[in-house]
Amino acid sequence: MNALHRALFEPRRIALVGASADRTRLTARAQLYLRKHGYTGDILPVHPREAEVLGEKAYPSIADIPGEVDFAYLLLGTQHVEGVVDAVAAKGIPAACVLADGFAEAGPEGAALQARLLATAKAAGLRILGPNSMGVINLNARIACSVNAALEADSLPAGRIALVSQSGSMMGAIMSRGAARGIGFSHLVGTGNEADLSAGEVAGLLVEDPQVDAILLFLEAIRQPQHYADLARRAHAAGKPVIVYKLGRSPYGAELATSHTGALAGSDAAAEAFFRANGIARVTTLEGLLELPALLIGRKPLAQPRRAVGVMTTTGGGGAMAVDCLGVAGIEARAPDAAAGAALEAAGFPHHGRLLDVTLAGTKPERVAAALNGLQQAGDTDLVLSVIGSSAQFRPQDSVAGILRARDAGLAKPLAAFLVPQADASLQLLAEAGIAAFRTPESAADCIRAWCDWRLPREAPAAPAIAHALPERPDEADARKLFAALGLDSPFATIASPQDAPKDVAWPVALKILSPDLAHKTELGGVKLGIADSAALKQEAAAMQHRVARMAPQATLTGFLVQSMAKGLGEAILGFRRDPEIGPIVMLGTGGVTAELFRDVTLRLAPVTEAEAMGMIAEVKGLQVLAGWRGLPRGDLAALAQAIVAVSKLAAREDIAEAEINPLMIHGEGGGVTVADAWVVRR
Amino acid sequence: MNALHRALFEPRRIALVGASADRTRLTARAQLYLRKHGYTGDILPVHPREAEVLGEKAYPSIADIPGEVDFAYLLLGTQHVEGVVDAVAAKGIPAACVLADGFAEAGPEGAALQARLLATAKAAGLRILGPNSMGVINLNARIACSVNAALEADSLPAGRIALVSQSGSMMGAIMSRGAARGIGFSHLVGTGNEADLSAGEVAGLLVEDPQVDAILLFLEAIRQPQHYADLARRAHAAGKPVIVYKLGRSPYGAELATSHTGALAGSDAAAEAFFRANGIARVTTLEGLLELPALLIGRKPLAQPRRAVGVMTTTGGGGAMAVDCLGVAGIEARAPDAAAGAALEAAGFPHHGRLLDVTLAGTKPERVAAALNGLQQAGDTDLVLSVIGSSAQFRPQDSVAGILRARDAGLAKPLAAFLVPQADASLQLLAEAGIAAFRTPESAADCIRAWCDWRLPREAPAAPAIAHALPERPDEADARKLFAALGLDSPFATIASPQDAPKDVAWPVALKILSPDLAHKTELGGVKLGIADSAALKQEAAAMQHRVARMAPQATLTGFLVQSMAKGLGEAILGFRRDPEIGPIVMLGTGGVTAELFRDVTLRLAPVTEAEAMGMIAEVKGLQVLAGWRGLPRGDLAALAQAIVAVSKLAAREDIAEAEINPLMIHGEGGGVTVADAWVVRR
Repeated sequence: MNALHRALFEPRRIALVGASADRTRLTARAQLYLRKHGYTGDILPVHPREAEVLGEKAYPSIADIPGEVDFAYLLLGTQHVEGVVDAVAAKGIPAACVLADGFAEAGPEGAALQARLLATAKAAGLRILGPNSMGVINLNARIACSVNAALEADSLPAGRIALVSQSGSMMGAIMSRGAARGIGFSHLVGTGNEADLSAGEVAGLLVEDPQVDAILLFLEAIRQPQHYADLARRAHAAGKPVIVYKLGRSPYGAELATSHTGALAGSDAAAEAFFRANGIARVTTLEGLLELPALLIGRKPLAQPRRAVGVMTTTGGGGAMAVDCLGVAGIEARAPDAAAGAALEAAGFPHHGRLLDVTLAGTKPERVAAALNGLQQAGDTDLVLSVIGSSAQFRPQDSVAGILRARDAGLAKPLAAFLVPQADASLQLLAEAGIAAFRTPESAADCIRAWCDWRLPREAPAAPAIAHALPERPDEADARKLFAALGLDSPFATIASPQDAPKDVAWPVALKILSPDLAHKTELGGVKLGIADSAALKQEAAAMQHRVARMAPQATLTGFLVQSMAKGLGEAILGFRRDPEIGPIVMLGTGGVTAELFRDVTLRLAPVTEAEAMGMIAEVKGLQVLAGWRGLPRGDLAALAQAIVAVSKLAAREDIAEAEINPLMIHGEGGGVTVADAWVVRR
Repeated sequence: MNALHRALFEPRRIALVGASADRTRLTARAQLYLRKHGYTGDILPVHPREAEVLGEKAYPSIADIPGEVDFAYLLLGTQHVEGVVDAVAAKGIPAACVLADGFAEAGPEGAALQARLLATAKAAGLRILGPNSMGVINLNARIACSVNAALEADSLPAGRIALVSQSGSMMGAIMSRGAARGIGFSHLVGTGNEADLSAGEVAGLLVEDPQVDAILLFLEAIRQPQHYADLARRAHAAGKPVIVYKLGRSPYGAELATSHTGALAGSDAAAEAFFRANGIARVTTLEGLLELPALLIGRKPLAQPRRAVGVMTTTGGGGAMAVDCLGVAGIEARAPDAAAGAALEAAGFPHHGRLLDVTLAGTKPERVAAALNGLQQAGDTDLVLSVIGSSAQFRPQDSVAGILRARDAGLAKPLAAFLVPQADASLQLLAEAGIAAFRTPESAADCIRAWCDWRLPREAPAAPAIAHALPERPDEADARKLFAALGLDSPFATIASPQDAPKDVAWPVALKILSPDLAHKTELGGVKLGIADSAALKQEAAAMQHRVARMAPQATLTGFLVQSMAKGLGEAILGFRRDPEIGPIVMLGTGGVTAELFRDVTLRLAPVTEAEAMGMIAEVKGLQVLAGWRGLPRGDLAALAQAIVAVSKLAAREDIAEAEINPLMIHGEGGGVTVADAWVVRR
C-alpha cells in the first residue's frame, strides 16, 4: 500500500477546509458523517472565524494545523478553491479532495482555473480527487469522509467490494441498493471530474488491498485509458474482477455524460471493445453491478465459453421466463449432455429438456442439491442457474440450503440463483454465502451474458514504427502509398495533366480527380468509371478538370488517379481512427450502398492480430455471404484479415487521425483484395 | 356481471373436491387459505371417507352436497378428474377449476382425456378453468380459492389491478412483488393449460368489473386470439388498460413456453404485431408489469406519440443514467421547447439541456413542482420523468410531495418517477398516489417505451371473399394466377412441352420448370435465365426437362413457365402465412441474397390497409434505399404498398396456408412491381 493509498483510504488526520458549523449545510456533512460512522482519527476543521466547529477544535487556516495532515477535503465554493490549494500543497498534504464543481465542465474559465490548480498541485506532489467529488468512504475502517446523503443511514454494511464512481450520487444509490440485500462495500470513492485522479487510477490503488475482492466502476466517460488497462491487468493477476457500468449506450446518454463531465465523447462500441480487450466485465443493468461480483469473485474467465447454461427451477413459469430472458441475451439454456443426463438419472431426475423442473420433487435441500450437481456435470455449459419460486419467499433457509449444499460439493461450474418472488431474506442469505443471486430475469441474463463475455486481458500485438513519409495534406494517391507501405498494395497510376498517359494500367480504367481538399469526389463529378482507352481517358480527364474546377474553385487539384476497373465478390469498409476516449481503433463493415442503413460494423482496439481480424470478419453479417453461405463462392477472407491487420498498424502513426478504405473489394479465394478508394487525414 | 363472473369471482358456496385433512398437503391449502384470508361463504370439502375436513363438514360426493354450489375446485390427481366432472356437471355447478396437470401438454393420452372432459363439461354448460390452474383469488371479497403458496403471507394488499396468468407460480411471484411496494390486486387468476377458458376470456369477464382499473396478463402462449381482441376493444371502451408480459421473445423461451402448455409456437414478431394492433401494451421487463399500470390508468393512448420526454433530476449521475436507458429504448430525453423553456425561466430554472438538474435548487416540493410543471408545458414530449436521488431514501414525504403537487396542478401530460437509491417508502407513497414509479432505469425505459407504443385497437379492413379457384396442389403458374386475381398481375406464359412456343413474351426470357412438388427449383436445375430467342428456349426446355426428371424423379412436372427478364431498382420478399397463435399475417422484407442474414423483415395482422402497408415499408431498412436515400432513384413504393394490401387479402382464403413472392421486383416511380417468383401452399 503506497502513500497515496494511505492518504485516501486510511487517513489518521483529516482537514475539512470550509467545514460549516451549521448542521443543515452540505458542508457540515463530512464532519457529521465521519463521527456518526465511527471515525477514530483526528478531524481538523478549518474555519476563518470559529474556534470550534461541531465540537471539534477548528483552525483559522491549514498552516495553523499542528503536525502532519493525511488528507484534506476542500468544501469551499469554486472561487475559493484555488487560494487554498497553495496552502494544502505547502503543508505537504499528499492528497486533497475538491467538492465544488464549476471547473473544466463549466467552460473555458473553469478549465483555466482547473489547469492552474493542477499545476500547483503537481509541482508540490499533491494529488487531487475531483473537482465535484463526493469524497472517500472506507467502511471497514469506519472512515466516511464524504458529503453523500446515503451516509444518513444509521449503519452501513461493510464488505469486500470497492466502488469507484464518477457520479457521487450514484455512489450513494448503489450503496443503498446493496445494503438492502446484504451486499456491503469496502471502499466507495467519488472521482467527479477527474482533473487529476481518474477512476482507473483510484481503482488501481485498491487492487492489491487485502480488504477488496472485486472492484466496481460507475463511469460516465473514460479518461486516461491506460490506467484502466493497467488496473485490469493487475486485477486479473490478483484474481479480482473489475466490473463496469458505463453511460453512453445511447447518443443522448453519451451527450449528457460528456457535457456533465467536460470529457469528449467516444463511441460506445469503442468503449465496449476497450472493456473486452482489457478483461473488464461490463453490465448494462444497474442491479447487475451488484449481482455480478459474486459470480466472478474467485473465478478466472472461461477459456472457451459455450454461452450456454443448465437451468433448474421450482417454478415452471418463472423458469421459462428466465430461459426466455437468457435467450434474448444470446445465452442458451441447454438440455443436459450425456454426463449430466446420467448424473440426473442416477439422482432420480430423468430429464432431457432445457429446463429441469423439480416442482413436483419438492424443494428439499438434498433434492435441489442433487439436481444442481447433476446439471453441473455437463461438459457444454458455463454455469448452472437455480430458479426459485415461493420457497424463496417463505422458507429462505430451505430455499438456499440446497444451493449451498451443491456449492459445497466443490464442483467447478459456478452456481447462481434467480429468485422469482419478492424474497429479501433469501437474497441476504445468498449474499452472505457469496452466491450470485438475481432479483430480475433481466439482470440474471445480463450478468450471465457478462460472465460468458469476460476474458483475460488481451496481449496487444506490437505496433512497429512505420517510416513512410506522408505529406501534410495527403490526397488519395498519398493514402494509397501509405497503405502500400503497410503491405496493402493495389496498383494505380497518376497523371499530372489530362494529356499525360498513365503507366501500366489494364483497360478499362476508372479516373478520379486528386485533391487533398475533396472528400466527396463523386458528388463533384470527380469520378468517372469504365473508361475504355487512352483517347477517352484524355477527353474525360479534361472534362473532369473543368467540371471540378467549376464546382469546387477553392480546391487544390493535384492531378488524376487512374486505376483498372475491378469487381470483387463483395465489398467492405475498412477504417482506422482515434476514439477520443479510448484511442486507436480499427473498424470493419459491409460495404455497398446499404451499409450505412444496416450499421453492420465491428471494431477493435488497434493494432490487432490476424486472429482478432478473423474474429472481426465473423461479426460482420454482410460478409458472411463470402464465408461459404448457401453455397455461394467464398471470398478471400484471409487477405481481408491481413488487410485489417495492416490498417490497424496505423495505431503506431501518432500523426494520423483517421484513414479509410471504402470500398475494399474482396475477390475470390486466393484472389486477394483491392483498394478501390482510400483517404487519410493527419492529426 | 354475468353468471360465470359470479361463479369465478363471487362464489358463496365452494366445493373443494379432494380436499385433504392433512395440513401439510398441497390439496389442503385451498381450504386453509380461504379461511386464513377471510372467506365468509360456505366451504364444502368433498372427501370419500372423512365426515369433517379441517373443521368443516365434509361430503362423500358432490351429489351429497345440499343446495346449490357456485364453484368447484378439483384437487384430485389427473386420473380421477374425469370421474368427477360428470358429477360436477350433473350438480349444475357453473364453473370448475382443475388443479392437476398431465392433460393436453402430456401427450396424446392426456389430450384425449382433456377432450372427453371438455365434451362432458360443454354438454352441461359447465366452464372449466385449467387444467393445471392455481385457482382464483378475489382480494376485495377476501376469496382466496387457490393453492398458491404466496397466500402464506399473513395479509395481502387489495387493489384495483387484476392479474390473469397462465403460470400459477408467476401469479404468486407478481403478487408478492407488488405487495412489497404497495401495489395491490383485485383479482388473480391462474388459467393453466386453458382447455376451455383462456386468459383472454377470463380477463374479458373483469373488464366491466367496477373493482378493476387495469388488467395484467402473464402469458406463455396465445390461445383463442379473438378473446384477446375482444377484451382489448372492450377495455379501451371502458378506459382500462390491458398490459401483457409474454414469453417467447427468444427461440428457447418459445420452445419451452409451448412444450410447457401444449400450445403451438407462433413467432414473437406476430405476437408483437397482434398486441399492437389490438391496443394491448406489452412490457419486456418483469417489474414493468407492476409499474406500467399507474402510467396508463385513466389515460387514452397518444394520438401522435413523439417518443420524447422531459426529464428532471435531483441527481446528475442518476438522471444521466435514466436518459441513457431511455435512449437505448428509442425514447429521447428532449430539451424544453419555447413554451416549456419560458415556463421554466419564469420559475427560476433557466435551462436548455436534455436534463433539468435541480440538485442545487434543492428538493423542496414547491421547487420540484415548479420544475415539473415547466417541463409539462412542452408541446413535443409525451411524459415528464422525475429522477429522484437520496431524498427518496431519507425524506420520502418530501421527495414525493413535489410530484403530487405538480400532478394536482392538473396538467394533462403524465408524470412518472424513477427512484435511484433503494427507496421502498417512496415507492409505497407513489403507488398510493397512483403515480407511476420505477425501481430500475431499465424498467423505466421499458414502461415509457410501452406508453409511446400504446395505440387504440386498429379498425381491421374488411377481407372480401376471393372467388378464384385454386387446384389442390398449385404450381407457380397457379400461384401467379391467384396473385393476378388479387390485382397483382405480372405477365407470363406457360408451355406444356419443350416444343411449344410461348405467347406474347418479350425476349430475353427466363424459363422455369412447373411442378407442385418442387420448392427449390434452382438447386435442381429447374431455372434458366436470359434466354435470347425461341430456338434457344426449345433447347433449354428439353435439357431442363431431362435434368429435373433425373434429379427429382418423383416430382410431377406440369410444364414450363416463361417470363420476360425484368430488373428492378430493388427487391422485396412479400409473404402471407397463418401464425399458429394469432392467425393470418402479411410479411415484408428486403430481398436479395443477404436478406436472410440481416433478418430485415416486418409483419402485420392481415389484411392491412394501404396506410399500414406504407408503415411496413418504412420499417424495412433495406427498402429505404428506394425512398430517396442519398439521392438514389426512388422506387415505386406506392405500387409496393398496393402489392402488400393485395397479398394480405389472402387472410380471407381459409384454404390457403402460406404464399410468397420472392423476389418482388420494385421498379422506378410509376414503374410498378413485377412478381419474379411465387408460390402458394394450401392448408
